[in-house]
Amino acid sequence: MSLAPLRPPKRLLLGPGPSMVPPRVYEALGQQIVGHLDPFFFEVDDEIRRLLPMVFSTKNDFNVAISGTGSAGMEAAVANFAEPGQKFAVFVNGFFCERLSEMARRQGASVVRFEKPWGTVFEDDEARAFILREKPRMVAYVQAETSSGAYQPGKAIAEAAHEVGALVIADCVTSLGGMPVLVDETGIDIAYSCTQKGLSCPPGLAPLTVSPLALERLRTRQTSPETWYLDLLLLDTYYSSRRYHHTASATMFYALREGLALIEEEGLEARWERHRRNHLAFVAGVEAMGLKMHVPEGQRLWTLNTPCVPAGIDDARVRARLLEERGIEIAGGFGPLAGKVFRIGLMGYGSTPENVLLILEALEAALRAEGYRGGDNGRAAAEQALAAYR
Amino acid sequence: MSLAPLRPPKRLLLGPGPSMVPPRVYEALGQQIVGHLDPFFFEVDDEIRRLLPMVFSTKNDFNVAISGTGSAGMEAAVANFAEPGQKFAVFVNGFFCERLSEMARRQGASVVRFEKPWGTVFEDDEARAFILREKPRMVAYVQAETSSGAYQPGKAIAEAAHEVGALVIADCVTSLGGMPVLVDETGIDIAYSCTQKGLSCPPGLAPLTVSPLALERLRTRQTSPETWYLDLLLLDTYYSSRRYHHTASATMFYALREGLALIEEEGLEARWERHRRNHLAFVAGVEAMGLKMHVPEGQRLWTLNTPCVPAGIDDARVRARLLEERGIEIAGGFGPLAGKVFRIGLMGYGSTPENVLLILEALEAALRAEGYRGGDNGRAAAEQALAAYR
Repeated sequence: MSLAPLRPPKRLLLGPGPSMVPPRVYEALGQQIVGHLDPFFFEVDDEIRRLLPMVFSTKNDFNVAISGTGSAGMEAAVANFAEPGQKFAVFVNGFFCERLSEMARRQGASVVRFEKPWGTVFEDDEARAFILREKPRMVAYVQAETSSGAYQPGKAIAEAAHEVGALVIADCVTSLGGMPVLVDETGIDIAYSCTQKGLSCPPGLAPLTVSPLALERLRTRQTSPETWYLDLLLLDTYYSSRRYHHTASATMFYALREGLALIEEEGLEARWERHRRNHLAFVAGVEAMGLKMHVPEGQRLWTLNTPCVPAGIDDARVRARLLEERGIEIAGGFGPLAGKVFRIGLMGYGSTPENVLLILEALEAALRAEGYRGGDNGRAAAEQALAAYR
Repeated sequence: MSLAPLRPPKRLLLGPGPSMVPPRVYEALGQQIVGHLDPFFFEVDDEIRRLLPMVFSTKNDFNVAISGTGSAGMEAAVANFAEPGQKFAVFVNGFFCERLSEMARRQGASVVRFEKPWGTVFEDDEARAFILREKPRMVAYVQAETSSGAYQPGKAIAEAAHEVGALVIADCVTSLGGMPVLVDETGIDIAYSCTQKGLSCPPGLAPLTVSPLALERLRTRQTSPETWYLDLLLLDTYYSSRRYHHTASATMFYALREGLALIEEEGLEARWERHRRNHLAFVAGVEAMGLKMHVPEGQRLWTLNTPCVPAGIDDARVRARLLEERGIEIAGGFGPLAGKVFRIGLMGYGSTPENVLLILEALEAALRAEGYRGGDNGRAAAEQALAAYR
């Protein structure tokens, strides 16, 4: 009749997220909660809203932690800014761009798409030409495509969008806290992310920032968004004017406050550099093992790596070995990349030289157990890369 | 530069929620997370989906924990079932009925309302007459009105609704886990709640159950709901078919699993009885102190009490005294009940004889410090009521 208290297995989370959670965040999760209108809750929220612009690299005043996961952040961005019948342009080169399109379609927007294969990025000229031709009201792109491992620069997109009077939404779910997001420098109007990747908290909140230009658009919207739960102006009255909207979770806010405090302590640029170094070491290792990276050099995420699955190897069997024999979570590809890539995350607290060496050794052992014969010792190559990095 | 680790104040949460969280749930919150597609995550979810029908008193197969707060549960119920142009009837006798109306309006539904003062309930005959006259496609009511403290029976509403081919949504945010919800016996088609009241977990998830009839309606809907994040059929593919939808929070699922396990251990009916006993003792106490209850006897929630603020007393000053001097959170009224009632929750882990006596003593002291002169010793009356209860 009685269930025994829950005892989760110990996992090394090196997939596309959630990432490893540091002890300070776990400690915060177990702290006593307060109410969603308690003065202490708003102190915590004030700290979060002071630290969010730091990780987004923005001077925006409007920064909020949405009470939902990263996909709730995406829906908040789309539902507040896509309007029925208006043109909504999406750069589509991966799974989450498809999700953006689908959400905009559901809002009744007229969706126009520029499609390229998963793992490629859009060049400045072609992005610009697409926007000038379509003259949309909104432009959305994914800065860090979790399905492919590609990083999409946004400056040319934002410049062209602003020329035609459009606002820019950028999905920063897999970049925030791990590599440059640069909201202001890029010209992004609405950026959203999650808590469980570069910020190394559990999933549950979606940080979101809105530029003054986008805020003006929101304030002059003719109709209210269909969503009440994710209505950004209502959320603003809660967090800024402390008027009840919904019951935000003290637990999740505690965790995010601690996750952001750890980033401030480390220094954002030092944190990027740590992610870059470990990413490069990982790449050196898998390439030495004879695996190719799916995304060309210079376009890769530092947070999430997508080495190709060697010919003749069943990626699901390799992943099962890692999970069952070693307690390591990595992910496979899906959609057009199903069976073709591994997705290996080195994010936040999990981005360490030790984890790079460990996953290379474990991946190599699993591949060889599945019959893979190519390549050299990946771990040794990564050690060299780490030592040589400056 | 560096923020000190977070140290929340210790609060006794006796407001309308969040309620006190038991140690076993806090322990679960600090446990190591797993991924949202990990076999262990689905084990936890399976246990949650086994236990949710128990607390809802239903045989429904479709039970889900939505990744958002109670208001996300409300939005899921409305956005999946309200369709543009279709008639959506709402029984309006409190703040959360207003919210239901507003959400249905945003979905483009044609909203018809039956209004009564906050704190009253709808009689069977008048409820029935309204539904038979309006012949809506959907009917929504609030079983446990957190703004007023009133419990709305739903059987007559559900019978009439089904006669005209309508489905019934019931807001059970402040009843679930603390008093009878009785989904099947009442005839409710869609019921939703939250985690931070009768279930005594932190806020962050919204349990929701859907009847086979409502599921059939969903499956034959002509258009997809505007919301992707809260699309119930998509959520079903995630939790039933284990296909990725969004990154559910292991932390929140751990907590809910433990909260539900504690209810199974206690026994649902024993738990209701505990809430009823403590509620009655509280009422005996405040009435002895000379305060009137806003809601008539027999229509009161057992989870949330709304004694009237005595004439000449500023409720905000009383609440500030309780919070600042004693660390006790209670809430005031708002809307038409602003300044007129206190809202005092005795829910879940917080519904104990000790808390009844403590809040009565503290409330009385705060009232007397603010100049209140009426009544007898409330604590003594509650002690008698507790002793006499059988």
